[in-house]
Amino acid sequence: MPVGTQGTVKAVAQDVLEALGAQIILGNTYHLYLRPGHEAIRRMGGLHRFMSWPRALLTDSGGFQVFSLNALRKVTADGVQFRSHLDGSSHCFTPEHAIDVQIALGADIAMAFDECIEYPAERSRAEQSLRNTMAWADRSLAHFRAHCDEVVWREKPESGVPQVPLLEPGMENRTQSIFGIVQGGMYRDLRRQCAERLVEMDFDGYAIGGLSVGEPRELTLEMIAEVLPLLPKDKPRYVMGVGYPDEIEQYARMGLDMMDCVLPTRAARHGLLFTSEGRLNIKNKRYAEDQSPPDPACDCPVCRRYSRAYLRHLMQAGESLSGTLNTIHNLAYYLGIMQRVRRSLESESAASPTDH
Amino acid sequence: MPVGTQGTVKAVAQDVLEALGAQIILGNTYHLYLRPGHEAIRRMGGLHRFMSWPRALLTDSGGFQVFSLNALRKVTADGVQFRSHLDGSSHCFTPEHAIDVQIALGADIAMAFDECIEYPAERSRAEQSLRNTMAWADRSLAHFRAHCDEVVWREKPESGVPQVPLLEPGMENRTQSIFGIVQGGMYRDLRRQCAERLVEMDFDGYAIGGLSVGEPRELTLEMIAEVLPLLPKDKPRYVMGVGYPDEIEQYARMGLDMMDCVLPTRAARHGLLFTSEGRLNIKNKRYAEDQSPPDPACDCPVCRRYSRAYLRHLMQAGESLSGTLNTIHNLAYYLGIMQRVRRSLESESAASPTDH
Repeated sequence: MPVGTQGTVKAVAQDVLEALGAQIILGNTYHLYLRPGHEAIRRMGGLHRFMSWPRALLTDSGGFQVFSLNALRKVTADGVQFRSHLDGSSHCFTPEHAIDVQIALGADIAMAFDECIEYPAERSRAEQSLRNTMAWADRSLAHFRAHCDEVVWREKPESGVPQVPLLEPGMENRTQSIFGIVQGGMYRDLRRQCAERLVEMDFDGYAIGGLSVGEPRELTLEMIAEVLPLLPKDKPRYVMGVGYPDEIEQYARMGLDMMDCVLPTRAARHGLLFTSEGRLNIKNKRYAEDQSPPDPACDCPVCRRYSRAYLRHLMQAGESLSGTLNTIHNLAYYLGIMQRVRRSLESESAASPTDH
Repeated sequence: MPVGTQGTVKAVAQDVLEALGAQIILGNTYHLYLRPGHEAIRRMGGLHRFMSWPRALLTDSGGFQVFSLNALRKVTADGVQFRSHLDGSSHCFTPEHAIDVQIALGADIAMAFDECIEYPAERSRAEQSLRNTMAWADRSLAHFRAHCDEVVWREKPESGVPQVPLLEPGMENRTQSIFGIVQGGMYRDLRRQCAERLVEMDFDGYAIGGLSVGEPRELTLEMIAEVLPLLPKDKPRYVMGVGYPDEIEQYARMGLDMMDCVLPTRAARHGLLFTSEGRLNIKNKRYAEDQSPPDPACDCPVCRRYSRAYLRHLMQAGESLSGTLNTIHNLAYYLGIMQRVRRSLESESAASPTDH
C-alpha cells in the first residue's frame, strides 16, 4: 500500500496511482486529524471524496505517529496525551476517540488504537505496554461495533458536488472494517499472547505492528514467523511499516496479504530508485549522460519515457518533477513485485490444489 | 507557451502537457547552458530527446536571464560577461556563442541574442543598447545561417536508447528557425527603427522583447501596437514574457501568434488560480470546506476531479501535489484562452473573407 500521509501519496496524482494499479492506499489518522481535521473531512463526505480516491483506503490508528513524537507525548492507561508537531497544541487520543476519528475519515479499513514501543525495550516495559494495547484493542472494537454505521459514505452526496467520482457500487450498504494490531516488542511469548487474544476478539483482519523500529531484520522476521501462524488465514494479515523490495516479497510469500511503507516514496524523493538491477542513486555523477531508462526491465511510464540523465538533471536542478517521476517508478516497482508474487502464488496454488 | 526553464515545465510531467494540448514549450538557454550544459545535451541528442518532448520547443537567447543578473553582468559591444547564479563562475555570451548554445540544444526555434534593458531607461541608454541588439541580431543571423545544419536532430539516435519518443517525421530534413527580437525600450521610434531593420535582415519570425519589465500595461500595449504593423503577417509574431489572461487574449486578437510567460506556472505554485470567475487564491480560509471545483466552467483534469478544499489542504500541508495540480489547471486555463481565440479568429475569417 502506497502511503498517503496527508491525503496524498506525496508528489503523485490520484489518476497516476490508479494507472499504476494501486488498489489501496494508506492515510494517516494523526496527520489528517490535525490538518485539515477529521470533522472537516466528515463534513465533506469522508476521505474518499475529499481526496477523490474511489478505491480502497486504510487509516492507521494514530498510535505509531504519536509514538514518534517522543518528548511530546504522555501515555496513561486511558490513552495518550500529545502535543501537535504543527503548533504545539494539546490533544488526547483514547481508543474511543481514535475510532471516532477514523469513522469520520471513513476509510475502508480502520485500525484499533495501539501503543508502539521503541527498540530495544525492557521486558517489563513491553509487558506494561502490551496491557495497554490489549485493553485498547478491546475498547476500540467495542466502540467501533457500536458506531460503525455512522460512516458518512452511507449518506448521499450533495448534488452540487459533481466533480468527485462515485464510490464503488454497493458501498453505501457496507460499513468499515476494523483490524487489530499485534504488539509485544521483540518478545515472542508476548507477541503470541497478543495475537491469541486479538483473534479471540474477532477482528476483521490482523496487523503485526511495532516492527521496523530499528531492530535487525532477522528479529523482524522472527516476530513475523512467530505471529503469522496464529492469525486466521481467511482474514487479511498485514505487516505494518515494511520494507525493502526483497522483504516485502519474502513476507508476501510467507502468506502476508498487506504491507505499507514510506520507503518507496520517501527514498524516491531522495533520489534512491529500486530497480531489477538493485538500488540506483540517481544523484550519482555517473548517470549525468546515461541515456538508458532507470530500470531497463521496467515497463512503467517513467522508464518508458525518461532517461537516467534526465532524472538526475531534475534532481540536481531541484525540480519537483524529480520527486514525482522517481516516486512513480518506485511505486511501479513495488506494485510490480506484489503482482508477480500474487501470480506466482496463484499458479502454485493451481499446480498443487491439495496443499491449499 | 508554457515555460520549461530547466528542461521541465515545473511540476508537470510531459505526458500531462501533451494531454493539455501544449503544442510548444520554452526552454531557457541560460539555465540549460549552466546545467546540465549545452554540450551534454547535444551529446544526448538535443533538448527534445533529453527531456523527451516530441513537440515543438523554443529556446530564448539567454539575453533576458543575463539581464536579470544585474550586478553579476557586464555588457560590451562584443557581448555579455556574467557570473553564474549557481556557483559564481565566469561566462561570456556573444551572439555567436548564444547561437552555438542554441544549436546544441536544438530547439525548433532559436532566438537572436539581444540586450533587454531595464525600465525606466534614459533615451541615450536605450539608443546605445539598441545599437548592440541590432548588431548582435546581424551577427546571430549570420552565424545561425552558417551553422544551422549542425543541429543534432539530423543525426540518427543510437539504437540503445529505446525509451525516447521519435521526433516528428521529416524533422531530420529540416533545420531550426531563428527569430529576431525587437528592442528599443519604451521609445516608439527606436522600436520602429529596430523592427524595420530586423525585417530587412529577413528572420524566420519576429519577437517583441523587453516588455513586461515593470512598465504600466498601457505602455506595453503602446509598444506592441507600434511594432506589430511593421512585422510581416505571414511569419510568426511573438511577444515575450506576457501576461495575464486578459492580456494574452487582447494581444492574440491584435494578431500576435505566440506568447510565453511564467505567470500561470509560477502563480500556481503560490496558490493563485486563474478561473472564468477571476483570480482565486486557494490558500484563502474561505475555501477550507468548499467542495466545488476550482473553476466550475473548466473541463481540465483538476477541475473534473478535485475540490477547492482539497487543493487548499495540499497547499496548507506543503504537499508538492499542490504545485502540480494548480499548475495543470492554470496551464489548461491559458491554453483554453488561446484555443478560444483561435477558433473565434477562424470563424471571423470565414465570415468575412475579403477582410483578410
